[in-house]
Amino acid sequence: MATVPLLSDAEMSAEARAVLDDIRATRGTDFINNFWRALAHDPALLDATWQRLKSVMGPGTLDPLTKELIYIAVSVANGCEYCAHSHTAAARARGMTSAQHGELLSVIGMASQTNALATALQVPVDDAFKL
Amino acid sequence: MATVPLLSDAEMSAEARAVLDDIRATRGTDFINNFWRALAHDPALLDATWQRLKSVMGPGTLDPLTKELIYIAVSVANGCEYCAHSHTAAARARGMTSAQHGELLSVIGMASQTNALATALQVPVDDAFKL
Amino acid sequence: MATVPLLSDAEMSAEARAVLDDIRATRGTDFINNFWRALAHDPALLDATWQRLKSVMGPGTLDPLTKELIYIAVSVANGCEYCAHSHTAAARARGMTSAQHGELLSVIGMASQTNALATALQVPVDDAFKL
Amino acid sequence: MATVPLLSDAEMSAEARAVLDDIRATRGTDFINNFWRALAHDPALLDATWQRLKSVMGPGTLDPLTKELIYIAVSVANGCEYCAHSHTAAARARGMTSAQHGELLSVIGMASQTNALATALQVPVDDAFKL
Amino acid sequence: MATVPLLSDAEMSAEARAVLDDIRATRGTDFINNFWRALAHDPALLDATWQRLKSVMGPGTLDPLTKELIYIAVSVANGCEYCAHSHTAAARARGMTSAQHGELLSVIGMASQTNALATALQVPVDDAFKL
Amino acid sequence: MATVPLLSDAEMSAEARAVLDDIRATRGTDFINNFWRALAHDPALLDATWQRLKSVMGPGTLDPLTKELIYIAVSVANGCEYCAHSHTAAARARGMTSAQHGELLSVIGMASQTNALATALQVPVDDAFKL
Repeated sequence: MATVPLLSDAEMSAEARAVLDDIRATRGTDFINNFWRALAHDPALLDATWQRLKSVMGPGTLDPLTKELIYIAVSVANGCEYCAHSHTAAARARGMTSAQHGELLSVIGMASQTNALATALQVPVDDAFKL
Repeated sequence: MATVPLLSDAEMSAEARAVLDDIRATRGTDFINNFWRALAHDPALLDATWQRLKSVMGPGTLDPLTKELIYIAVSVANGCEYCAHSHTAAARARGMTSAQHGELLSVIGMASQTNALATALQVPVDDAFKL
Repeated sequence: MATVPLLSDAEMSAEARAVLDDIRATRGTDFINNFWRALAHDPALLDATWQRLKSVMGPGTLDPLTKELIYIAVSVANGCEYCAHSHTAAARARGMTSAQHGELLSVIGMASQTNALATALQVPVDDAFKL
Repeated sequence: MATVPLLSDAEMSAEARAVLDDIRATRGTDFINNFWRALAHDPALLDATWQRLKSVMGPGTLDPLTKELIYIAVSVANGCEYCAHSHTAAARARGMTSAQHGELLSVIGMASQTNALATALQVPVDDAFKL
Repeated sequence: MATVPLLSDAEMSAEARAVLDDIRATRGTDFINNFWRALAHDPALLDATWQRLKSVMGPGTLDPLTKELIYIAVSVANGCEYCAHSHTAAARARGMTSAQHGELLSVIGMASQTNALATALQVPVDDAFKL
Repeated sequence: MATVPLLSDAEMSAEARAVLDDIRATRGTDFINNFWRALAHDPALLDATWQRLKSVMGPGTLDPLTKELIYIAVSVANGCEYCAHSHTAAARARGMTSAQHGELLSVIGMASQTNALATALQVPVDDAFKL
């Protein structure tokens, strides 16, 4: 249950529907996931979020799968249930294998552990790490 | 200032020193960063942490730089100052370019933003994302 | 499913019931939300939490709606599902419009993003910000 | 110490400098805080962050001070040291009084406490809060 | 719904099944909770996680119940729904009384509140706390 | 550098000074750590925080050292630098040994890791854990 109703295409403003049309065209599918239907209550926020996502996750020096793995890592550390599901699905769609998934989880688990240890110990940053 | 003294090689137990020797041998350098000198107060924890780190960050289906980028992402989301510094340095040592660093930050920023929006909206997980 | 049973008025101690009576009187409604029924297992904790909440959210120099918006912001950043729901409902009851909700989400999203960037970059605090 | 060098105007690209010029013009001051000088390594990220910040924190249905209070709340919950400093300074510049600051802290403290309690108790969302 | 299928004993590898056998033998029960069935997709991660858990939660200078209370505290602060449930159950199995549960929640709530206040105020560490 | 000036006894209100006097009397020392001098700007918040802390950390069914260990665990998970320092010092003052400190860190590290794994895998709560 969302804190706002999920809007169907018919219920949202023309401005919001135009964003969904661009999502469909960019992704090459008619499917629109719930996140965008919740955001559609604020067309300006919907548009800004989508435009930025399209740019950030688009072509660059990191390949698309690597970006999805990073996205999952952040989402897990932030405890976002929806995002863990949606970006794990996205990573699979971009070819993430079961072995890669296991390694991703291993790195996330390791980092979570050493993050906690470094914070508990308040380890001072080494001079060698300073620019 | 750490919450425990950072131990020099001479101050730590033989068991802890053996772990540091393995870190030096594995990394091919005499340099030992402060994290391990703080952990050296508990040789069993030091050993378990290092053995697991060596295994997790070792050869696998994800390349070493990708693992470091994921490590940075988790560390940033967890707000670990030491880890942000040490793993940014590690990623550079593994060849991270300035352009890749910028893209990493862009994905981390994007994920942080949509994590917050999905949580605020309590968006229900789409059936399409369920296995 | 809570980690403790939710207590009905009949199941809880007289001390806990007295707190619920005060909640009802203060809010002018018979409705008691689940949070208090879960806390009722520890009447001292229930009482301390309610007394402090009543004081903090009561009259002051910030208006009641502003306080609810701040409450939502913290709850989202902490990933509290129950709190996101209950305080979004509370903010609506205090007059939050759909446009204000969208702006709240926009600020929360923006802050989440720049928080991550500032942490990733470990930006030193400007002298101008120091007292 | 940042994880990247803070760039002076002379050291950054023309594209980055143009963003700083817009920050100066919008804010009516020559002062540029460190956050932007760190972001200047990636002019596209710098530009996207600033354009969105300018829009989100600009005129709307929530007043500028309320937006800064929400920004502080998120930054504190995310543990961002730089952001706690910079946005407390920004809130003061927008007129936050000492009494308002105290109330803001009280709400942040209260929310942090009840967030933890609701999560520990895994309180189910009341039907009354569902749309 | 997990992001991976939960594997039955018959569906998992022999290596994974051996870990489950050790969990059963160590705990003296046939019951295996879902966490391990999800991890079973990566036998190496499953094994490393279980071996470390068995060692960390085993005999030492802190009694088993104290360790479970600490585990709950971390899990709540990290917002882990599954862990809040599983470790509250584990603490009860180790004898946690209702009064102790209430005190645990009170300390978690108190710490969450003062953590937020100290972060918001950016209180400098006292010299007296430095080693 | 705090976001507010740390007030000396002479600079704070009589109401705030009375709280500090109670802290001194309760703790049996003249030393007042910085946290309270920062909170002294809002005597009502200072008083409420101290009164609740005195009650929560006072005699009960959990011993004082156990409460401090739980406090450290929450503080580390929340990334509170000041609190990690102040409560590690407090735990030592209550008799925490080096071995206990090491075990505490081991449990915190373990929990941080499995919290992340359970969140990444979105493991459903077992029926056996439901009341």
